[in-house]
Amino acid sequence: MTIAPQTPSVAEAAAELEKLDRRHLFRSMQRGDIHDRVVIVRGEGCTVWDARGNELLDAAGGGVWHSPLGHGRKELAEVAAKQITELEYFTSLLEFSNDKAIHLAARIAGLAPEGINRVFFTSGGSESVETAIKAARLFHHRRGEPDRTWILSRHYSFHGAAYGSGTATGFPPMQEGVGPNLPHVEKLTPPNSYRPEMFGGQDQTDFLLAELEQTIERIGAGNIAAMIGEPIMAGGGVLEPPADYWPRVREVLSRNGILLIADEVVTAYGRVGSWFESEVRGMRPDMITMAKGIAGGYAPLGATLMTDEIADGLLETGGFFHGYTFQGHPVACALGLATIDIIEREQLVPKAHTIADWLRTGLAPAADLPAVGDIRIVGSLAGLEMVTDLEHKIPQEWAPVERVCFEIRKRHGVIARPYGHMLVLAPPLVITEDEARRATDAVVDVVSRFSADGSLAD
Amino acid sequence: MTIAPQTPSVAEAAAELEKLDRRHLFRSMQRGDIHDRVVIVRGEGCTVWDARGNELLDAAGGGVWHSPLGHGRKELAEVAAKQITELEYFTSLLEFSNDKAIHLAARIAGLAPEGINRVFFTSGGSESVETAIKAARLFHHRRGEPDRTWILSRHYSFHGAAYGSGTATGFPPMQEGVGPNLPHVEKLTPPNSYRPEMFGGQDQTDFLLAELEQTIERIGAGNIAAMIGEPIMAGGGVLEPPADYWPRVREVLSRNGILLIADEVVTAYGRVGSWFESEVRGMRPDMITMAKGIAGGYAPLGATLMTDEIADGLLETGGFFHGYTFQGHPVACALGLATIDIIEREQLVPKAHTIADWLRTGLAPAADLPAVGDIRIVGSLAGLEMVTDLEHKIPQEWAPVERVCFEIRKRHGVIARPYGHMLVLAPPLVITEDEARRATDAVVDVVSRFSADGSLAD
Repeated sequence: MTIAPQTPSVAEAAAELEKLDRRHLFRSMQRGDIHDRVVIVRGEGCTVWDARGNELLDAAGGGVWHSPLGHGRKELAEVAAKQITELEYFTSLLEFSNDKAIHLAARIAGLAPEGINRVFFTSGGSESVETAIKAARLFHHRRGEPDRTWILSRHYSFHGAAYGSGTATGFPPMQEGVGPNLPHVEKLTPPNSYRPEMFGGQDQTDFLLAELEQTIERIGAGNIAAMIGEPIMAGGGVLEPPADYWPRVREVLSRNGILLIADEVVTAYGRVGSWFESEVRGMRPDMITMAKGIAGGYAPLGATLMTDEIADGLLETGGFFHGYTFQGHPVACALGLATIDIIEREQLVPKAHTIADWLRTGLAPAADLPAVGDIRIVGSLAGLEMVTDLEHKIPQEWAPVERVCFEIRKRHGVIARPYGHMLVLAPPLVITEDEARRATDAVVDVVSRFSADGSLAD
Repeated sequence: MTIAPQTPSVAEAAAELEKLDRRHLFRSMQRGDIHDRVVIVRGEGCTVWDARGNELLDAAGGGVWHSPLGHGRKELAEVAAKQITELEYFTSLLEFSNDKAIHLAARIAGLAPEGINRVFFTSGGSESVETAIKAARLFHHRRGEPDRTWILSRHYSFHGAAYGSGTATGFPPMQEGVGPNLPHVEKLTPPNSYRPEMFGGQDQTDFLLAELEQTIERIGAGNIAAMIGEPIMAGGGVLEPPADYWPRVREVLSRNGILLIADEVVTAYGRVGSWFESEVRGMRPDMITMAKGIAGGYAPLGATLMTDEIADGLLETGGFFHGYTFQGHPVACALGLATIDIIEREQLVPKAHTIADWLRTGLAPAADLPAVGDIRIVGSLAGLEMVTDLEHKIPQEWAPVERVCFEIRKRHGVIARPYGHMLVLAPPLVITEDEARRATDAVVDVVSRFSADGSLAD
């Protein structure tokens, strides 16, 4: 059993931490109605422990489809310690850089799709996307097309939370009450295999391409800088596009002089069974944004990758007045190098396909439940689309899905993630078959007791 | 002497690194005309070494008024290694957090000005400022004042490089060619003790307050969310405001229901001799943004601090749909806790005043040089304002100031920083008197040979 007997002193210390947390810590996506606190204090592999001594199976990748290498690797503790002793930080400004940032940039360029050779480091996905949007606009500006300022994005996408990346994000709460947001951002319909009725009887790709062409015509091709999209939508619901979607989108964009930014913050590297999923999906991107996998979560690190054409286009015409203090942080980059070593050594990229099989088998019993509209699995990403009505596919409210995840944790000691009306699994890539079965059993048990009306049976 | 004799193998390996750098690495503020490469590979205290074996004195704080604790501290290598072994990462999303983030939030709240109790962690200054702007707008929106969207900032300020923070930044190159930028941002004149003629014979504070009041009247108090400003302008030229500036600004803002965000990314902690300089300058801010000092540069870490009124105002009315994956990163927060310990133990906050004395004495001979318009020193920050004409105070071009810093490094092995037409020193707070003298001697030597026309005598 995963729930620890609490000695009075452990319980008291945990209560004190939770009290301090409520008093001082402001978390991501926090709301006043979330009273529960889970203070994680230790991790090893796919297991984490909270301050109350509960042992929990991390089936959500550090909670946010992250932590591909699993938790608490001693090898990486040594890498960080060695690098701090050598050089913890120096700027990557003007003529300065450091050996670890250089080696990691070269290594990433070797893994990235052909033509992507340049690496601009950041400390996370939002910074990466801000950089890509700025680079796209400036590239056109410097080439004498200053009107190319519009960014095409998609509903239900997630690109970050800073003003540029947050405006591109396709969830309206990200923009509500904090505007005016970044001008010249337009949202398109994303692919959706679960809701073909959205496309009015047409072939999905035909419909989406017609919308893209009409949007380009309406805004004017000469006014559009770039389109940004995830090769596979994670936040939007683990949505795999039809095979011809990205190749045809790419063709239309190229024909209209519009750049394509592949947002691989979730997918690079390994999460869905590839180093870079944009390559698998035929995107042929001009830029790639990445973050989560790049240092395995062991340090904040991100990157914006780009072609020589874009990088040189900016550098030879006055430079790019842009950058971040922590860019190319030597410790983060040293961990980035070790992350690639581990992924290669332990063959974690193909492992995602094995995990997909385990998740598919384990979640199969949930497929016919009245509260589950669809189950989609791509590599190590699994999404259960929770609905209140199977026929009309009405999305469940967020709060009941949060309660389901709460119950999965309380009863089974398994961490799943609520994402809007989706219930998501995205375990570390080191998960074992037994652990995967434990996670899927927990999900199936609780979801089986969950009704479309939002109630949970005992 | 600091320039190492290069053995062929060292030189070859360095050349190979520099080649890889040019091929793959895209740095901050990079331009095609910067051909030199300095690859830093090791650091200890205030000394760093490049790949060619040159020993360099870091008089610029990791190059960017940073690295307050100096380089390569073994104690912090152990802290990072221990934390990675315990827990390298878990999300701070919804109900989850970790013990290190909680303890650090509580510790920062204890150091921060009275009334500032809540901590939203980020991974750098840009993310901190994005968070503050969003929080300010949303706070008013939720209180029923949705028209309060304007942000007042100042010319020559530096607030970051993402779209919100970059729009607030007072250097036009940050906005050129990447627009349209964030709407509803207005720039005011900052204090400037060197150019009293800007204020047309009026008292400086009187002039600036009149401009502020007129701006509020023009935009409409009911349309303004917040003003953001650095207690002391670092990037803008190490500019100290008159003592009555911030108290009077604060009074006007309060009277008009406008929030005040103190951007302490450079000043917190210790850089100018205080934990938080906003307190010293009488700002009484509603929010504080910070980054550089918070983990000593040993990991990417930042924070947006705020009052209970703002935090609760957001949380109790639907929450704050905002956050970053790496928020509250346990390793970064563990390093943040150790950073505070070291600053307290080694008394680095008052040390900044001692450094100020050393810099003042050492740079005094430069005061009467024809290329130096003014020398300003605040704590461990020193700025030489380079001009082409002493009488008319015409700012020097950027390129000649970069050449001066290049020469200081080449001849003396000292790293100073060009910042527009300013030449800046901001050493780690562990600098010794001998090292400070070596830095100021190097600056005085090269600047003495520098003419207002931009040429350097041998």
